[in-house]
Amino acid sequence: MTAILKHANEIVSRCRILASYSEEPEFLTRTFLSSPMRAVHADVGNWMKQAGMSVRIDNAGNIRGCYAGTSCSAAPLIIGSHLDTVPHAGAFDGPLGVLLGIGLVEMLGGRRLKFPMHVIGFSEEEGVRFGVPFIGSRALTGDVDNDLLARMDSKGVSVEQAIREFGLDPARIGEDSVAAGRYLELHIEQGPVLESLDLPLGVVETIVGQSRLGVRFCGQANHAGTTPMNLRRDALAGAAEWMQAVEHKARATADLVATVGQIEAKPGAGNVIPGEVSLTLDVRHGSDATRRENVVAFLDCARQIATRRGLNVSFEKRLDQPSVSMDGALTDGLARAVEDCDHPVHRMNSGAGHDAMIMARRMPAAMLFLRSPGGISHYPDEAVFVEDVAAALAVGAKFVNFLEAGGE
Amino acid sequence: MTAILKHANEIVSRCRILASYSEEPEFLTRTFLSSPMRAVHADVGNWMKQAGMSVRIDNAGNIRGCYAGTSCSAAPLIIGSHLDTVPHAGAFDGPLGVLLGIGLVEMLGGRRLKFPMHVIGFSEEEGVRFGVPFIGSRALTGDVDNDLLARMDSKGVSVEQAIREFGLDPARIGEDSVAAGRYLELHIEQGPVLESLDLPLGVVETIVGQSRLGVRFCGQANHAGTTPMNLRRDALAGAAEWMQAVEHKARATADLVATVGQIEAKPGAGNVIPGEVSLTLDVRHGSDATRRENVVAFLDCARQIATRRGLNVSFEKRLDQPSVSMDGALTDGLARAVEDCDHPVHRMNSGAGHDAMIMARRMPAAMLFLRSPGGISHYPDEAVFVEDVAAALAVGAKFVNFLEAGGE
Repeated sequence: MTAILKHANEIVSRCRILASYSEEPEFLTRTFLSSPMRAVHADVGNWMKQAGMSVRIDNAGNIRGCYAGTSCSAAPLIIGSHLDTVPHAGAFDGPLGVLLGIGLVEMLGGRRLKFPMHVIGFSEEEGVRFGVPFIGSRALTGDVDNDLLARMDSKGVSVEQAIREFGLDPARIGEDSVAAGRYLELHIEQGPVLESLDLPLGVVETIVGQSRLGVRFCGQANHAGTTPMNLRRDALAGAAEWMQAVEHKARATADLVATVGQIEAKPGAGNVIPGEVSLTLDVRHGSDATRRENVVAFLDCARQIATRRGLNVSFEKRLDQPSVSMDGALTDGLARAVEDCDHPVHRMNSGAGHDAMIMARRMPAAMLFLRSPGGISHYPDEAVFVEDVAAALAVGAKFVNFLEAGGE
Repeated sequence: MTAILKHANEIVSRCRILASYSEEPEFLTRTFLSSPMRAVHADVGNWMKQAGMSVRIDNAGNIRGCYAGTSCSAAPLIIGSHLDTVPHAGAFDGPLGVLLGIGLVEMLGGRRLKFPMHVIGFSEEEGVRFGVPFIGSRALTGDVDNDLLARMDSKGVSVEQAIREFGLDPARIGEDSVAAGRYLELHIEQGPVLESLDLPLGVVETIVGQSRLGVRFCGQANHAGTTPMNLRRDALAGAAEWMQAVEHKARATADLVATVGQIEAKPGAGNVIPGEVSLTLDVRHGSDATRRENVVAFLDCARQIATRRGLNVSFEKRLDQPSVSMDGALTDGLARAVEDCDHPVHRMNSGAGHDAMIMARRMPAAMLFLRSPGGISHYPDEAVFVEDVAAALAVGAKFVNFLEAGGE
């Protein structure tokens, strides 16, 4: 086994160790500032120290390792990802990026760069405990306000109280923000694209924007046996026609995804024509204009179907989150590093949100995806190939060297 | 107001009282052996006793009133309908027939006939709680077997357990069957035909056959943002295509009706592609051959869609109920009673199943329909005209007198 494969293997083993720190005995569930996060901090902190970094936990519960540079004025390269998980998670969504960051410091073998390298394990990205994601990276960008601090979890504990109970000081979160730097995140793809292309790595250009809507079709509930087909106002038949149209249009539009994930038909008996159907629509695209145009078209289509069928349709817009572009120069540097490591460069969008989306508000940011076997994520079967981790290490080291040479 | 209109008005009021006994505060929902059924039994039992009947609850939860006759050997005239409801029901589907039965006994004013008159409020007709209809009338025809008793509701309670928890003895259901008699059911049409003909009453000749199926599409749950449209195995998109195809084919076949009334998508989160969709299909037609041919075509269509989309599809046949003809002589008697009451005789099919369909297995059965304003049923707006209830009382009384005179 080559040295870099051994190193990659050690990183995968470390992910597995962290995955054993959970709120549940049978599954990995580790939410913001939950008690197993202390064991994660202990291990991650030790690995950081062994790599020559100084370590602290900031007031949002982020663990921050600093590997000093030789220049007094150089802004840091920040390599980060998150250490919290969804319920019943896999071992790699988040922690892999943190441990790859430490791995890149380890690969320096004690050598000092002009700029400092910071590795950050964000305390919160998934939004599970408080229903709001990215609390960890928001602390770095100075975006934790009093509204967020007052937010309650399901047990009535506020963000502020949770921070205090973890032994930190919520009043000092403002001091934890960073003024300047460059940001790199390494993360599993959480989708099937790289696997379908037989590629280990992908270079993220844009984190797509999202629209989330609630849609409701209303018709007339009636008896399934006594109402002839031509006299029905069947809300579910209308919803089915619309779901088909949405799928058809999304398939016909490059890179657009549209998903109906929830559906409820009322009254919900086998022998009653549904009088009301509520469903959700999730639409994502790298171009906000394309996304919004398509949402308008989907809603127009729903209105046309409803009118033709004698139904009413109403909409509730729940989210309209713009897309976030990664920094062009930094991303070009990352792509060059991929090329120099003899991998084909595949530029792609991220269909999921990441900490890089928040960090990009304050500094140039870039993201590298690792292939997700089976496209599986947010599930215990989530995996990663050791060879792909080794490839990410090599590309990351090359990228760091570009920055050191000023060639990004 | 004439006496018979007053009587009809009282029957409508009683229906409204029973409609207040519900599992839900805002809507009428009263499933098999649910707790509000006890209040229904108390009121119906009191009205039966006031009409001179003895009352008992049998082991299937049917309430059975008996008005004794003068002959020791005469088989009873059984007048029945059901007391359970669909979710978010109206006040008349079922209860009106039970209360009209009591009304016909009341109209005797204490006079005894040769034959006994039984009025039955069936405990279960709609099939909501256990996915199988007619549990009440099946107990009378001796068709409740161990498979049916073992069937589970959505909370994992079996039919047997539900019966025991209501204070009844499932082991003694066999003793509740009836050997001989004649059966009459009075019921709202639950459709638009009589209203379109401006007629108060219709004489039922045939109850159409029904197929009920459970259908399950299985694909792959995955991230709504990271899974491109062409790499999805979306169970709900497949189900939507199939629902459209079923509707299209049903519209193209004369007198066929096909309905998807229930649908559930799992895991059921707005940002997750559904991996599994379960739905129900209800198919009805007067010709059993036409109905079965179409069910086969619907299932073939589901298989083709599933294969093309990389889904699995499975089916559970829950009901294959042949069409049932009402008894010719009894129906002729009912038609003559309609004519003698100066109403035009309209003979028609019933698109809905009724307890009469089950009772017809063991004894001659006849059915009288009352006009449904707006054709609305299985919905809170379900209504009835007091004048039509009065007409049904007059026709029912005439029919009882024909039987007493031996002229049916």
